[in-house]
Amino acid sequence: MSHNSFGHLYRVTTWGESHGPALGCVIDGCPPGIPLTEADLQWALDRRKPGGSRFVTQRREADEARILSGVFEGKTTGTPISVMIENTDQRSKDYGEIARQFRPGHADYTYFAKYGIRDYRGGGRSSARETAARVAAGAVALKVLQSHFSDIKIRAALVQLGAHKINRDQWDWAQVDQNPFFSPDASTVKAFEDYLDDIRKAGSSIGAVVEVQADGVPAGWGAPIYGKLDSDLAANLMSINAVKGVEIGEGFNAATLSGEDNADEMRIHNGQPEFLSNHAGGILGGISTGQTIIARLALKPTSSILTERKSIDIEGHEVDIRTKGRHDPCVGIRAVPVAEAMMACTLLDAWLRHRGQTGNVVFSLG
Amino acid sequence: MSHNSFGHLYRVTTWGESHGPALGCVIDGCPPGIPLTEADLQWALDRRKPGGSRFVTQRREADEARILSGVFEGKTTGTPISVMIENTDQRSKDYGEIARQFRPGHADYTYFAKYGIRDYRGGGRSSARETAARVAAGAVALKVLQSHFSDIKIRAALVQLGAHKINRDQWDWAQVDQNPFFSPDASTVKAFEDYLDDIRKAGSSIGAVVEVQADGVPAGWGAPIYGKLDSDLAANLMSINAVKGVEIGEGFNAATLSGEDNADEMRIHNGQPEFLSNHAGGILGGISTGQTIIARLALKPTSSILTERKSIDIEGHEVDIRTKGRHDPCVGIRAVPVAEAMMACTLLDAWLRHRGQTGNVVFSLG
Amino acid sequence: MSHNSFGHLYRVTTWGESHGPALGCVIDGCPPGIPLTEADLQWALDRRKPGGSRFVTQRREADEARILSGVFEGKTTGTPISVMIENTDQRSKDYGEIARQFRPGHADYTYFAKYGIRDYRGGGRSSARETAARVAAGAVALKVLQSHFSDIKIRAALVQLGAHKINRDQWDWAQVDQNPFFSPDASTVKAFEDYLDDIRKAGSSIGAVVEVQADGVPAGWGAPIYGKLDSDLAANLMSINAVKGVEIGEGFNAATLSGEDNADEMRIHNGQPEFLSNHAGGILGGISTGQTIIARLALKPTSSILTERKSIDIEGHEVDIRTKGRHDPCVGIRAVPVAEAMMACTLLDAWLRHRGQTGNVVFSLG
Amino acid sequence: MSHNSFGHLYRVTTWGESHGPALGCVIDGCPPGIPLTEADLQWALDRRKPGGSRFVTQRREADEARILSGVFEGKTTGTPISVMIENTDQRSKDYGEIARQFRPGHADYTYFAKYGIRDYRGGGRSSARETAARVAAGAVALKVLQSHFSDIKIRAALVQLGAHKINRDQWDWAQVDQNPFFSPDASTVKAFEDYLDDIRKAGSSIGAVVEVQADGVPAGWGAPIYGKLDSDLAANLMSINAVKGVEIGEGFNAATLSGEDNADEMRIHNGQPEFLSNHAGGILGGISTGQTIIARLALKPTSSILTERKSIDIEGHEVDIRTKGRHDPCVGIRAVPVAEAMMACTLLDAWLRHRGQTGNVVFSLG
Repeated sequence: MSHNSFGHLYRVTTWGESHGPALGCVIDGCPPGIPLTEADLQWALDRRKPGGSRFVTQRREADEARILSGVFEGKTTGTPISVMIENTDQRSKDYGEIARQFRPGHADYTYFAKYGIRDYRGGGRSSARETAARVAAGAVALKVLQSHFSDIKIRAALVQLGAHKINRDQWDWAQVDQNPFFSPDASTVKAFEDYLDDIRKAGSSIGAVVEVQADGVPAGWGAPIYGKLDSDLAANLMSINAVKGVEIGEGFNAATLSGEDNADEMRIHNGQPEFLSNHAGGILGGISTGQTIIARLALKPTSSILTERKSIDIEGHEVDIRTKGRHDPCVGIRAVPVAEAMMACTLLDAWLRHRGQTGNVVFSLG
Repeated sequence: MSHNSFGHLYRVTTWGESHGPALGCVIDGCPPGIPLTEADLQWALDRRKPGGSRFVTQRREADEARILSGVFEGKTTGTPISVMIENTDQRSKDYGEIARQFRPGHADYTYFAKYGIRDYRGGGRSSARETAARVAAGAVALKVLQSHFSDIKIRAALVQLGAHKINRDQWDWAQVDQNPFFSPDASTVKAFEDYLDDIRKAGSSIGAVVEVQADGVPAGWGAPIYGKLDSDLAANLMSINAVKGVEIGEGFNAATLSGEDNADEMRIHNGQPEFLSNHAGGILGGISTGQTIIARLALKPTSSILTERKSIDIEGHEVDIRTKGRHDPCVGIRAVPVAEAMMACTLLDAWLRHRGQTGNVVFSLG
Repeated sequence: MSHNSFGHLYRVTTWGESHGPALGCVIDGCPPGIPLTEADLQWALDRRKPGGSRFVTQRREADEARILSGVFEGKTTGTPISVMIENTDQRSKDYGEIARQFRPGHADYTYFAKYGIRDYRGGGRSSARETAARVAAGAVALKVLQSHFSDIKIRAALVQLGAHKINRDQWDWAQVDQNPFFSPDASTVKAFEDYLDDIRKAGSSIGAVVEVQADGVPAGWGAPIYGKLDSDLAANLMSINAVKGVEIGEGFNAATLSGEDNADEMRIHNGQPEFLSNHAGGILGGISTGQTIIARLALKPTSSILTERKSIDIEGHEVDIRTKGRHDPCVGIRAVPVAEAMMACTLLDAWLRHRGQTGNVVFSLG
Repeated sequence: MSHNSFGHLYRVTTWGESHGPALGCVIDGCPPGIPLTEADLQWALDRRKPGGSRFVTQRREADEARILSGVFEGKTTGTPISVMIENTDQRSKDYGEIARQFRPGHADYTYFAKYGIRDYRGGGRSSARETAARVAAGAVALKVLQSHFSDIKIRAALVQLGAHKINRDQWDWAQVDQNPFFSPDASTVKAFEDYLDDIRKAGSSIGAVVEVQADGVPAGWGAPIYGKLDSDLAANLMSINAVKGVEIGEGFNAATLSGEDNADEMRIHNGQPEFLSNHAGGILGGISTGQTIIARLALKPTSSILTERKSIDIEGHEVDIRTKGRHDPCVGIRAVPVAEAMMACTLLDAWLRHRGQTGNVVFSLG
């Protein structure tokens, strides 16, 4: 029940602070015999890496992942995979005020309230830097999934920036890596740029919505009641920094639908079950249907902003506080590869549990 | 990692099918010495009970909870509390078609895909009847919480029925138990009645949004990263039947806010930290702030409807299917006490874990 | 991490007190599609049942198991199996002294020290009556194991009663159910009878050693480090009432062996690996070798005896205490079916985890 | 349920292979505000370190622990403590034969049977080198325990080497660190030296028994049934490399005792409960009594010996095998600090869980 782990059979434990010497993760339960190199992790880390455009934090980190255990002669051995990423750009500075003040909207206050102590350097453990470890774990999970299910694809995109939504009719996955927003809609990029430039220059920040999809997942993964696949996704996506909402399929819109409109009808196609729609987002009763799994997560704006806000300090004085430093004007952007990673880890864990209990029951109709 | 349990130190395991002889839960980790009787559970169960109005299923169940262990001379002993609720109104009938067909939008198909077998009587394990066990566990959790924190109040309400939202300016908790919708806004009741009567008579169904709030929770509960209080809430609320979305505080609206607008500023009031707003919904960095904790859950419409829909059967034939029987036209209504129960269980578990790790660190400013 | 559960993928939660209305267990994670009836549980419960001979407690309990969920049309569905056993012979009596005094060597004092409250009726939760629930769960586990591995046999026997050991050269499994001691050595039965009659008549009690073996377990179950099969066995066997020691294979005798003598040499037999000895008790590095798995457990004497012993009461007075009532003169006897049950549950859980991580890797030499 | 973690609220995850670049652990759930430096870990690691005498392996490792996270300004923060120990003496060599052959009595065969792949360099994950990580975690646990309970002392000693037992009447804790065997009985040292010199020179090995005691533990830690303190100790001690048996208090000897002899009588001394003996080893009903907690573990002889033994290789050929290299002639010796570490971790975890559920109920008599 450790607070810094998630997953059951594919279990990831992360550690490290923003400005400590390093951060990393230990992956336990990885199936054996899967080809794995540090390069498999690096492509994913590079997508999340800071400093990639003017729309993300200007902190410079190589984010080079080192595999310290669990891989032998290029293959996973089934023992724990320890991944370490050194922090190289922890600027030495005087933390004087930050050390004593609580930034509004930030975890500063609650960490202090809980523990009576906090590592205030760069947000310490609460920094979004922790998500690098998730991305490494997700890359491993994806490798395992795809080595058994060649059709599985896991992809995320930014679908809303502030109040601006993409045009879903223009959705093109190929566009996602062609712009600094991970937008699947090329037509929105210019507007996003202008909008976020204004916010960035004003020292402000803005929220976003990210959508993550998994194709090629067989029916039967997940489990009833408290082991629901959507329950696991909700927990794991909500654990990403700044996330305040998670929805599956129609999500909050499902509240407005009638039973007729929401039901995904079925037919037989080439001898196999086929759904005529996917309001459910690929999950019914907590178990995958075989359709695309679709989740969305809402991220609040970065709380570290240049505008002065009212706050207090640890001595109980009232203060006005501006947060200087290098911050993402929209943390939602870099959450895109993180959402993919959490989807990959969640699905792999669900599959291993399904295989454990049922031995991959393959049902057949008729 | 059991699929039918949730919580860590306050751990609830539920069992039972809709049309089996009984259902129930085992509560492990309950603190000792708490006064508890079956009546403490019954008031909560009665709120969730079917048959209370024409807007909920007409199944008649006494929902009488029996405590089989863990309570001695009127107090909890610290050992497992086993609660059993007998099913009394499982109408004997011919399940012929339902046994072979998959209702669209229902868990019928996925259970079968996963296990190769399913208890088709009344939805079996996937029936919302399982939530009675949650309500019992929540009533115990509330008793424990309030015996240590007399200010804690946990209350939920229905805030949206289909596309119709309540008027939040009219929010009055006293109204919630005065109408069959658990609406906190008396002015909406008539409209809700007319709307849902139409739906009910048409043999259709509709979704809803429920909001649950917890007042009086001290700062410091929850934990960083994967033990976040919002992460636990997301998992536990998403596990409720028909829920497709969960949000905390501003939730999806946070995506549209600027950093300035979203930050909850702080001041000192009577020597104590005070927040000037609550966009965060009482949780920052996964840890409670001391403000009201606010979560919302979106529920899809009941999939069991009278309208004919396309589906398939277990032999792979295409069929058209209508679901007769007694069903909730809006499962969101009876989800109100269930959401309260899940909030209570989640908070108690968070508190026990907090106490375990920190011994209830009480920080003081200055 | 619940205190009243064990296992991971095959997870058993037990509940109930000696003199409450009932006791039982909830089994989560059972594979689907396994034929199961109440009769499958009953034969195992009957072996553990009190009242079978003059050498066990004279309490009369039918120990009839009722399956309340998780089985449909004679097969497991993959959802939780709830088993309930009613207590029928909880003699109503005046617990006056027992309610206030701590029996030496009993859990009375520690439960009170921990919880500040205890159910003193018949030992409450600490009664060996709880083991009935384990036996039910073990019977289900054995059914699952044998439906996949027809060669698996799980058998236990009493190998030592007080200082009297059986003659291992006379070991005959067929004898175990032919005498009231579960002794595999017919030649010891008369001596055991005389010995235990004396102890019983003196109102005393005596300890014992039980050995449990599992044949037909494939190589590869269990896991390195903290998931070792011997580690799980140690925890699960040590959790049985009155057990104070657990050993695997040579066990404590391994301390006296040289590396040469302890190593189980290997050869190829009919193209398969073959061990020439089994000092390891079928487990190396925490993983099954394919040989017979062998564990032994030492049980202390029942603490409830007629002889007067010094103790104290809850007011802090010194008292002299004799425990009247119906007790086992040797709890080791009825621990035999319990040890089998714990072995079955442990192995099934290990197999499901192995299958989850590896998909039942079948290695082949050459 | 990860296989490379143990503990619940104080949860330790270890990683690393014998001949990989490093090994380490992640400690989750450590209480905040505890002073901690790398020196606190180093004294414990130095006791376990190889190369200390001719009676342990001649591998030379600095075993320098580096704390990478979770400590800020000299105190624990409540976030994960990541500890890394670099491997510096992994001699480069040709593993030709070892890579293909299974050493009898070793985990070589079972790892291969389970995973179909194994890191054969120095035993890979199955090497006793993993215990360095446990010792680091134990040192942290001890620091936490002693910062709250100044009377707690955790000490282990070697009490049997092969068939040679120490004289318990000569027990003197001060002797333990004065001889290379961790023997508490100075009079046995010469005999141990001569005995083990013969074994070492013969290229053989021998087993041992270690006893670990914890003084100053309050009554009430641990929990009933599957959360028993002795059950946790059994699992955690059995997880140490080469351990084949664990016993508490009288252990296997309890089988030979009568109820009268085994019961620890109680009296009141200075107003407090006092036990007149400690057959129970400080645990009754799975819960600490307030007396010294006593456990013993039996370790088999190292399987890596110079004598030729029969085995097979991965191609299925029969081979004769001698294990050259640097090995402990008796792994039991270096298990002494490891046993202390596992006792410390187990107790801290039990205390945190106890505090979580009960808030440290302090009962008082009268």
